Amino acid sequence: MALNGDLKRIVALAGGVGGAKLIDGLARCLPAGALTVIGNTGDDFRHYGLHVSPDLDTVMYTLAGIAHPINGWGIAEDTRHMLGMLARYGEETWFGLGDRDLATNVLRTHWLAQGLPLSAVTARLCQRLGIATRLLPMTDDPLATVVYTLEHGKLAFQEYFVRHRWQPTVQRLVYEGAETAQPAAGVLEALEAAEAIIICPSNPLLSVEPILQVRAIREAIKARRVPCLAVSPIIEGAALKGPTVKIMRELGLRADVAGVADYYGDLIDVLVVDEADREVDIPQRRFVTNIRMMTSTDRGRLAEQVLRLIGDLHS
Amino acid sequence: MALNGDLKRIVALAGGVGGAKLIDGLARCLPAGALTVIGNTGDDFRHYGLHVSPDLDTVMYTLAGIAHPINGWGIAEDTRHMLGMLARYGEETWFGLGDRDLATNVLRTHWLAQGLPLSAVTARLCQRLGIATRLLPMTDDPLATVVYTLEHGKLAFQEYFVRHRWQPTVQRLVYEGAETAQPAAGVLEALEAAEAIIICPSNPLLSVEPILQVRAIREAIKARRVPCLAVSPIIEGAALKGPTVKIMRELGLRADVAGVADYYGDLIDVLVVDEADREVDIPQRRFVTNIRMMTSTDRGRLAEQVLRLIGDLHS
Repeated sequence: MALNGDLKRIVALAGGVGGAKLIDGLARCLPAGALTVIGNTGDDFRHYGLHVSPDLDTVMYTLAGIAHPINGWGIAEDTRHMLGMLARYGEETWFGLGDRDLATNVLRTHWLAQGLPLSAVTARLCQRLGIATRLLPMTDDPLATVVYTLEHGKLAFQEYFVRHRWQPTVQRLVYEGAETAQPAAGVLEALEAAEAIIICPSNPLLSVEPILQVRAIREAIKARRVPCLAVSPIIEGAALKGPTVKIMRELGLRADVAGVADYYGDLIDVLVVDEADREVDIPQRRFVTNIRMMTSTDRGRLAEQVLRLIGDLHS
Repeated sequence: MALNGDLKRIVALAGGVGGAKLIDGLARCLPAGALTVIGNTGDDFRHYGLHVSPDLDTVMYTLAGIAHPINGWGIAEDTRHMLGMLARYGEETWFGLGDRDLATNVLRTHWLAQGLPLSAVTARLCQRLGIATRLLPMTDDPLATVVYTLEHGKLAFQEYFVRHRWQPTVQRLVYEGAETAQPAAGVLEALEAAEAIIICPSNPLLSVEPILQVRAIREAIKARRVPCLAVSPIIEGAALKGPTVKIMRELGLRADVAGVADYYGDLIDVLVVDEADREVDIPQRRFVTNIRMMTSTDRGRLAEQVLRLIGDLHS
C-alpha cells in the first residue's frame, strides 16, 4: 500500500456541492499542493452584471473552510441584506446571493473587467483565502450549459436549476461554446502530469460533462497512461443530491450505477460504488466502499480509500 | 403670504447629507411632484467596478425615509458583511459600502451597462422606492471633482473625502469633464419652469460648484426671472458639517457667511442665514432664521420658512 504522501500530482474533476465534499477530503489527505481541481464553469452566468461562478465558489469556499455547513454552497452564516434590498426595488431574488458571497462576485467581475482571465481571477481569490489546492476553471472561454425543457423551452442553467428548482422535464442539454472553448492555462499540463485522475461524485451530465465538452480535456483524459477513477453520484438508483437520476431518466439513460458506468465508458478505469451496489455489473473495475459523505470524517475516509486505491493501482 | 400649496415648481440644488435634510423638509411641505432636485454627481466614482453616486443616494434614501439616522448617508440599520469579506480577501475597505446600499449600486451599474443614462437609472430607482420628488443628476456625462492636495498631490474626490477623511490641505479643485458636460434630460426644463431655485446648505465648493460647472445650468440660473435663494452652510464661521470652512480657508476664500455670499454673488438673490449671523453684511438680501436642522421638525420648519419667503418674494 502506497502512502498518500507519495502522491504528488492528483487531478480531480468536480462540480458543486457533491464534488466539493470529496475535494475537501482529498485536500486534507494529500500533501499541500498535490491536488489540482478542474472545476465546472458550465453554470457560470451574469446576474445583475456580476459574473457568478457557482461551482468554482463552492469548491473554493469548501477548501477555505467557510462553506455553508447545511447548503454546501455559499458562505457560512452569510446574510441576504443586499437581496432584501433588491426585493424592495422590485427585482428578482430567486438567486440566493449572500452578502459575503457578493464580495467574491464583485471582485471576480472587477478583475475580469480589468482583463484577467477567469483562471487568474480564481487563482488570486484562492490565494487570498489561503488555499493550497490549485483550482482551475475548465476553460477561460464561455461554455454554458443550456437546458431545453418540455415546459419552458430553452432555459439558461441557473434558470433551470435554481429558479425552477430543476423541476422542468429535460429534453436536451446543450453546451454552448464547446466547439471553440480551450482548456484554461494549466489544465492540460496538470492532466498530463497527473498520477491519477478522479471524477468526483458530481452530476455526470450537468457538472462533469461540461468539463469533458472541452475537447482537449476529454482527449487528454482518453490519452492518459494513469488510472482514472470516478466516484458514483448514485447509490441504489437514487442520486446522492440533486437531479442526477431525474435527468438521466428524462434523457433516456439508465439512471443507476450501471448507467453512470455506461456514461463514462472507457474514460474511467474504476468506478467507486457504494456497498449497496456491490453486485452491480459494470465493464470497468469496481471498487466497493461506503461512498456517503455525511460528515467531515466521511469525506476524509472516502478520500483516503480512493487514494489508497490509486496507490494500489500504481504498485 | 402664499400657501405652499400654491407652489408647484420648485427646483433645489443639493449635495449630500446637509442638502438632503432641507430637501426632506421641502418635499414634506410641498405638494407631491412640486419639487425637483438637481443632485451633485461630482463625487461619483467607480469602486470595484460599481458605479457609486454618493450624493444622489443620500438624497434618495432620505426621501425614501430609509437613510441612516446618524450618518445621514447610507441606509438605516445596514450591515457591512460584503465589506468584511472584501477585507478577508485583503482588499480596500475605506469606502463604507453597506450590504443594502450595495443593491442600489449593483442595480445602477447594471442598468448603466445596459445603456440607460444615469438620469433614467436614478428615476427608476426613485420610482421603485416610491419617491414622488423628482431627483435629477446634474449631468449624465462624466464630471468629476478632483482635489489637488499639498500632502498627496492629485486625489480623486472619494480618496480625498473618505479615504483621507478630508484632512489633506486643498490647493486646487478641478472639475474634470466640465467643459463638455451637458445638463441631464429635464434639468434645464425644470430650471426654466421653476417658480424659485433653492441652493441647499451644501458645501459650495464640493457639492454645489460641480453642479454649476455644467455651463448651461449656471447660465440658466443666471438668466432666471424667479428668486434664487441659498441657505448658508456656515454659522458663525463654522461649517454645519464637513470641510466647508477648512477648504474655503485653504483656497484663500473668506470662510464665513459673507464668504458664502461672495462665492454665490449674483447667482442668488437671498441668502438665508442663522440668527447668529443676523448682523452679517452681504450684498444680497438676507433672511434670518434658525438654520440648524438637528431634528426632522427642524427640517420641516426651515423648509416652511424658505417656502414662505418664496411666496413673499412672489407677492
